[in-house]
Amino acid sequence: MANTQAYAAKSADSKLAPFSFDRRDPRPDDVSIDIDYCGVCHTDIHFAQNDWGVTEFPVVPGHEIIGHVTAVGPEVKNYKVGDTVGVGCMVDSCRSCAACESGLEQYCLEGMTGTYNGEDRHDGSITYGGYSDKVVVSERFVVRVPEKLDPASAAPILCAGITTYSPLRHYGVKAGDRVGVIGMGGLGHMGVKFAKALGAEVTIFTRSESKVAEAKKQGADHVVISTDRAQMKAARESFDFMLDTVPVQHDLNPYLSCLKFDGTHILVGLLDPVEPPLQAGALVGKRRVLGGSLIGGMPETQEVLDFCAEHGITCDVEMLDIRNINEAYERMKKGDVKYRFVIDMKTL
Amino acid sequence: MANTQAYAAKSADSKLAPFSFDRRDPRPDDVSIDIDYCGVCHTDIHFAQNDWGVTEFPVVPGHEIIGHVTAVGPEVKNYKVGDTVGVGCMVDSCRSCAACESGLEQYCLEGMTGTYNGEDRHDGSITYGGYSDKVVVSERFVVRVPEKLDPASAAPILCAGITTYSPLRHYGVKAGDRVGVIGMGGLGHMGVKFAKALGAEVTIFTRSESKVAEAKKQGADHVVISTDRAQMKAARESFDFMLDTVPVQHDLNPYLSCLKFDGTHILVGLLDPVEPPLQAGALVGKRRVLGGSLIGGMPETQEVLDFCAEHGITCDVEMLDIRNINEAYERMKKGDVKYRFVIDMKTL
Repeated sequence: MANTQAYAAKSADSKLAPFSFDRRDPRPDDVSIDIDYCGVCHTDIHFAQNDWGVTEFPVVPGHEIIGHVTAVGPEVKNYKVGDTVGVGCMVDSCRSCAACESGLEQYCLEGMTGTYNGEDRHDGSITYGGYSDKVVVSERFVVRVPEKLDPASAAPILCAGITTYSPLRHYGVKAGDRVGVIGMGGLGHMGVKFAKALGAEVTIFTRSESKVAEAKKQGADHVVISTDRAQMKAARESFDFMLDTVPVQHDLNPYLSCLKFDGTHILVGLLDPVEPPLQAGALVGKRRVLGGSLIGGMPETQEVLDFCAEHGITCDVEMLDIRNINEAYERMKKGDVKYRFVIDMKTL
Repeated sequence: MANTQAYAAKSADSKLAPFSFDRRDPRPDDVSIDIDYCGVCHTDIHFAQNDWGVTEFPVVPGHEIIGHVTAVGPEVKNYKVGDTVGVGCMVDSCRSCAACESGLEQYCLEGMTGTYNGEDRHDGSITYGGYSDKVVVSERFVVRVPEKLDPASAAPILCAGITTYSPLRHYGVKAGDRVGVIGMGGLGHMGVKFAKALGAEVTIFTRSESKVAEAKKQGADHVVISTDRAQMKAARESFDFMLDTVPVQHDLNPYLSCLKFDGTHILVGLLDPVEPPLQAGALVGKRRVLGGSLIGGMPETQEVLDFCAEHGITCDVEMLDIRNINEAYERMKKGDVKYRFVIDMKTL
């Protein structure tokens, strides 16, 4: 058992504070990792505050982990001491269902094991995440970080990146497609980079005129101010694919109208329930599709890292001293970060 | 101009009654058809009653037309006098947009011309439908009725049939797939026949225990009573594809839960708005898809007729004397027809 330093929330009301615990002894298929960087995802805040009512306290958040290998179990084949590796949103799954066998462990029929607040499939303990100095993870849920990538800015690829990359790939977005990206936060700005790298013509939909210059800087070909009725009307029936990264309730109907016939609108945020209500005629009359997508499977998580290395894509990050994590949460709640905080674990 | 006998509604409050008008002189690409049979679709009732606020009166409903060719224009290539032919829900479109060029005229970017209550693209007149003794239609919007098919029971294939066939084909439903069909009316019972012919294992979802025997008779492998929570719970995460033929508001969430990951739920009825509201988590968490589908294009309408001939599929019909059309409407509103009324035009 390895003593581990971390930051944890002890209750929904308490701030994150230093916490120590023991990581499990490595199993034969485990990779032991010293954590160098960990991205800060809005989901971390939801768990720390118990917004979804499922948090087991204390909770150590963090599922955008970059580190280096310090030891490998005897059954580990693909990693050796010193390798730079990543761990994303999950650390285990049943490994034998139809989803797992397709490399879609995030849809495991028994439920994936989250990197934090998950229940370990062997000993029933609750998993602790990446706001910590080390982690032990089965090889299957570890990915290799290509040398070309800057490790710190690669961290958010493990959640914000794969979450936006996966639906673009699954639905076959290709050169010449007209893609809309709704929202320009941690996920949205990655979506723009991926869609551009795939050759699409990209439009950012944002509520605020003040974000137009920034959207163009991110590589968007066009910007539509979604609160401007005339602009939304002009955008009708002109998009092949809409990547919707907005994690709070919003009216989907004006966006569905922006899709061509056979167009696809994919939600990657949770916005239950959908209100105002969906107008089903927008789907029926034009054979449009509304779907959802959840992170990505392990093979695709490796693929997105390789894709980023090949195309020179990284996340725009602001480095964070872990002692300032509570202030960072407050800034994130106000949308005040471009575009992802990444904890430098040396500050722990 | 050919004098034409018909039944029309003269206002939203009036019953359908005999009506006569002149069909246009045939254009060079027109096929002149004497109508033998016309199916009665629930949409006819909506238009006769002006439920959607768009009806131009008088309205002559009917878009499931079977007849025989009496004359062809000089540019007509594929039909000759005496051929048995069909006309479905549309009689024209722009013919040059991306949708029309793909044989998806129902999604014409300029809007298709409905078989009734549509605006003729040449002279601006309002189209009159199939509750009449003859019709003149451009060859592109005419389909051939295979000899093997009984003409009367083939009529509803032109709307109820193509509407259910098209999404099953578009989404690639295949042998071994688990398909749910929601609702067992004119559309639902055709959906069951098509899904079975494609090799799927088919479950009918119905609200009523009383329909179980009938569902089995229609070829369903299983029946789920959708009002029975235990049955719905047992059906969770077990379907590849859900064909939703229910044309009134209903809760989609329990059905979405019945889909496997990557499963698809297709609406073919109009149920605006979607209430109770959609739980988007059901889409995101399992990469499920909610889509819609509108009839089918002309090539696929020919394909479904050929498919029906090949597989011995017809619609279950009750033949109707047109003088009883108003009583038939009342019975349809109560769901009292198995499964489609077809007017024998000799009774006109």
